[in-house]
Amino acid sequence: MSTKLSSRMDRFGASATVTLSARIAEMRAAGRSIISMNVGEPDQFTPENIKEAGIRAIKGNDTKYKVNMGIPELREAIAHKLKEDNNIDYSLSEIAVSVGAKQALMSSILAIVDEGDEVIIPVPCYLSYPDMVRFAGGIPVFPSLNPDDFSLNVDNIRERVTGRTKAVIICSPNNPTGSVYSEESLRELAELALEKDFYVIADEIYEKLMYGPKHFSIASVSDVVKSHVITINGFSKAYAMTGWRIGYAAARPDIIASINKIHSQQTTCVAGFIQQAAIEALAGPQDSVEIMRKSFEERRDYCYNRLSAMPGVKCPKPEGAFYIFPDISGCLNDKISTDSAFCEYVLEEEGVAIMPGSAYEWPGSIRISFASSMETLKEAMDKLEAAIRKLK
Amino acid sequence: MSTKLSSRMDRFGASATVTLSARIAEMRAAGRSIISMNVGEPDQFTPENIKEAGIRAIKGNDTKYKVNMGIPELREAIAHKLKEDNNIDYSLSEIAVSVGAKQALMSSILAIVDEGDEVIIPVPCYLSYPDMVRFAGGIPVFPSLNPDDFSLNVDNIRERVTGRTKAVIICSPNNPTGSVYSEESLRELAELALEKDFYVIADEIYEKLMYGPKHFSIASVSDVVKSHVITINGFSKAYAMTGWRIGYAAARPDIIASINKIHSQQTTCVAGFIQQAAIEALAGPQDSVEIMRKSFEERRDYCYNRLSAMPGVKCPKPEGAFYIFPDISGCLNDKISTDSAFCEYVLEEEGVAIMPGSAYEWPGSIRISFASSMETLKEAMDKLEAAIRKLK
Repeated sequence: MSTKLSSRMDRFGASATVTLSARIAEMRAAGRSIISMNVGEPDQFTPENIKEAGIRAIKGNDTKYKVNMGIPELREAIAHKLKEDNNIDYSLSEIAVSVGAKQALMSSILAIVDEGDEVIIPVPCYLSYPDMVRFAGGIPVFPSLNPDDFSLNVDNIRERVTGRTKAVIICSPNNPTGSVYSEESLRELAELALEKDFYVIADEIYEKLMYGPKHFSIASVSDVVKSHVITINGFSKAYAMTGWRIGYAAARPDIIASINKIHSQQTTCVAGFIQQAAIEALAGPQDSVEIMRKSFEERRDYCYNRLSAMPGVKCPKPEGAFYIFPDISGCLNDKISTDSAFCEYVLEEEGVAIMPGSAYEWPGSIRISFASSMETLKEAMDKLEAAIRKLK
Repeated sequence: MSTKLSSRMDRFGASATVTLSARIAEMRAAGRSIISMNVGEPDQFTPENIKEAGIRAIKGNDTKYKVNMGIPELREAIAHKLKEDNNIDYSLSEIAVSVGAKQALMSSILAIVDEGDEVIIPVPCYLSYPDMVRFAGGIPVFPSLNPDDFSLNVDNIRERVTGRTKAVIICSPNNPTGSVYSEESLRELAELALEKDFYVIADEIYEKLMYGPKHFSIASVSDVVKSHVITINGFSKAYAMTGWRIGYAAARPDIIASINKIHSQQTTCVAGFIQQAAIEALAGPQDSVEIMRKSFEERRDYCYNRLSAMPGVKCPKPEGAFYIFPDISGCLNDKISTDSAFCEYVLEEEGVAIMPGSAYEWPGSIRISFASSMETLKEAMDKLEAAIRKLK
């Protein structure tokens, strides 16, 4: 035996967004001015009433261990929200509070995926899904979304189902494309899940940020469909609470008990004062959510118009979330020949940080987060356009 | 394929303390009055200056994503502490901030332990270590501490080392016994670690709570020993910050990079305002630590004296932490014949929650946390004594 690392460390990578953020922090520390279009984080601050609830709880010494699954008052508020917004009946034993939606996702995967199990992830996809599956010893399988508008293509999924298919992971509104899956396509996927008996992990973290279509939760189709679904959500995106690290999973009691068991050995609980802030987010006034949504819609329109006018750029119009995912393959040349090289070039030359599509299993595109002020977006689009024109 | 859970869920159990806490919460909700002597949590509140630092950061909108490994200012404060208190030189790339010391422990194990690797855990031991090892696919191996005083017995460890031994996990001051491992025994273990080339995971979370001997950090022995050690610590016990969920691991850069990689896919980061509170804990006035230590010493003396006088109870005197671990096998009878039955009996009959020794791989004893007010301790000891006398 020697003091080597475990072989699981070779199976998966670090989050590319998290890694790029660390690099930007270093570049800034070295004096460079960088515009971050890479992070999935609203530029707004957490609403004052939510901050106040957290502060009140700290002052009131809500700083002891809390019950592992989340305090009942928070799980009640979440159950109420899932009924009102999503038309799903979840009881308190069907809800697990987690350190961000990310932990809920990772623990859901660990609770159901065995070594060698296949997990279908339509692409482009959120970059952590494949690595989470690999961490659990599973094998990610990548059917394509419809390339023209990134809508869900259930036939592509059906073709990839095998005897080892354990789950399909979906994200609508979608990261990284901003597409929204139709109710019809989700009902079709639900039917396939029952027919082939696999799980659906439904990441609904962006559901409050929609610019046209209506959000539909796949777990709302029927009770038997619900028993096959793990619904993931959180507070980061709708309430500008990224740094608070709180989310949840909702699913069958046996799945939730497994998730809680993992958390009992890993993080114990979410801080009580953060849970109090989350209760206020759900139970308090919701106007900030609509204000944010409207401002994102304006930014979406601006970025879409700017990008569509750039030479070599093809751009489906996002219907939700705060990402736009243009195809920039028409901008590449012999020297800058890949999306990764393109992002590197734009970062080094213009100081604009964007994510390469290949990180989302979709080479030739880039992901731009438009969760920044209009002023910043204008500057970023000007710089991006200048960089593209220089490539010609 | 069917929608079963993963087989890893059968390999490990939920934290027994976390599970009992949930049960107590339910008993209390049903109107029963329960004295908790089961939780490893100081009864004191977080010092005001630390709370204020957290509140100031929330007010200042320190609520965005932070760098994954912990903000540099906090890692600097931790490096300074490890040099001053523990005589170990760790650079910033050798420190990973985590959601509680528990996450640091779990991620350290995941970073080094492969399926089938053996991890030696001297017993009695903190109950999460074996489950964390099993979660990672490893096999826990349980040599005994010296049964008279729970000091470290390195010969017992040496006997159990095989070609598959990946690590030894130690905890000093010890949970659940309150024993403190001598510098001599730790140097002997360090030599064995070099000879057999295994890791030592040193959980030092209770180092500030000592009632006589001096704490010694095994990583301080030499640079080559340090390269074999993962030092785990946190803020929960010394600063009454259990519910804030913040801790850290310090180790070789490649191990820390692996831990950060896991966290990048699992929890992203610790909330910025919690990191600010932790900086204040390390950099601010330390008088509250000594006040707490003294009050625990008084309680230790009280519990030791009371327990030693109870019929059938044998009790080594703890030298650190806030646990006492008496042998109650002399109190058992035909009906109440195990430590678990004894704890169940005391909880149901007297409303006093204590942990069975078998949860710590040491049947026949019980763990009592004396992190409660003297008034509560007096009531608990009276009830425990009454329960024991009824068994005769």
